[in-house]
Amino acid sequence: MLNQADDIDHLLHALADPTRRRIIERLSQGPASVTTLAMPFQMSLPAVVQHLQVLERAGLVGSQKVGRVRTCRLDADRLASVEDWIAGRRATWTRRLDRLGEVLANDPGGNSPPKEPTT
Amino acid sequence: MLNQADDIDHLLHALADPTRRRIIERLSQGPASVTTLAMPFQMSLPAVVQHLQVLERAGLVGSQKVGRVRTCRLDADRLASVEDWIAGRRATWTRRLDRLGEVLANDPGGNSPPKEPTT
Repeated sequence: MLNQADDIDHLLHALADPTRRRIIERLSQGPASVTTLAMPFQMSLPAVVQHLQVLERAGLVGSQKVGRVRTCRLDADRLASVEDWIAGRRATWTRRLDRLGEVLANDPGGNSPPKEPTT
Repeated sequence: MLNQADDIDHLLHALADPTRRRIIERLSQGPASVTTLAMPFQMSLPAVVQHLQVLERAGLVGSQKVGRVRTCRLDADRLASVEDWIAGRRATWTRRLDRLGEVLANDPGGNSPPKEPTT
C-alpha cells in the first residue's frame, strides 16, 4: 500500500503532462471510449493507452471494457486530494500574512513595520 | 516565454517530489534560510539546493542573498494556479453530475435511469 507522500507523488506526476491533462479535461465532461479520447491527439493509439495507464495507476481514471469498447471515467475525488494539499499550504500562508497584518495594525509606533521573521 | 501548458508542467513536476513538498510546507509558514530548510533532511546541502533550484525555476520559491545568508520565500500565487486548474476540472465534473441528477429527477417513469452518455 502506498503511503500518502508516494500517493500524491503519483498523482502530481500523472498530471504533470499536457496530454494527460487534456485527457482529464475531456473526462471531466463525462466518460469516453479510448478511441474517442485518442482522436484529438497527433499520436498513436498505443501512446495514448500508455498515458491512460499512468492515469489509471494514479487512480485518476478508471476503465471498464464491454465487448470491444473500453470506456474510461474520471475519479474526481483523486483530483480533490491534490487540491486539498495545495489549499492547505495556501491557507497556512494566508494565516501567516493575516498575523503579520495584525502586528502591523497593533504597532503603537505605526511607522516601524516588524521585520519579517526569518529562521 | 513558457506557454500555459509548459508552465503548469513545471509546477506539477516541481511539486511531484516529497522533499520539495516538505520545503513548500515549511515555507508556507514563512521565509527561511537555505540552511534552516536543509536541517530536517537526511541529505547533503547541495542536494537540498538542487531541489530549491527546481522550485525556483517553477516560480514557486524566490530567494535573496544578504551577506552570507540566502533566504527563500514561497510564491503562494503559483500554488494558486495549480489549484485553479484542478478546481476547474472538478467544477466541470460536478456540473455534469448535477445535470444527470436533474435528468433523473425529471424522469416521468421514475424507474428508468438514463444511460450515462458515453462517446
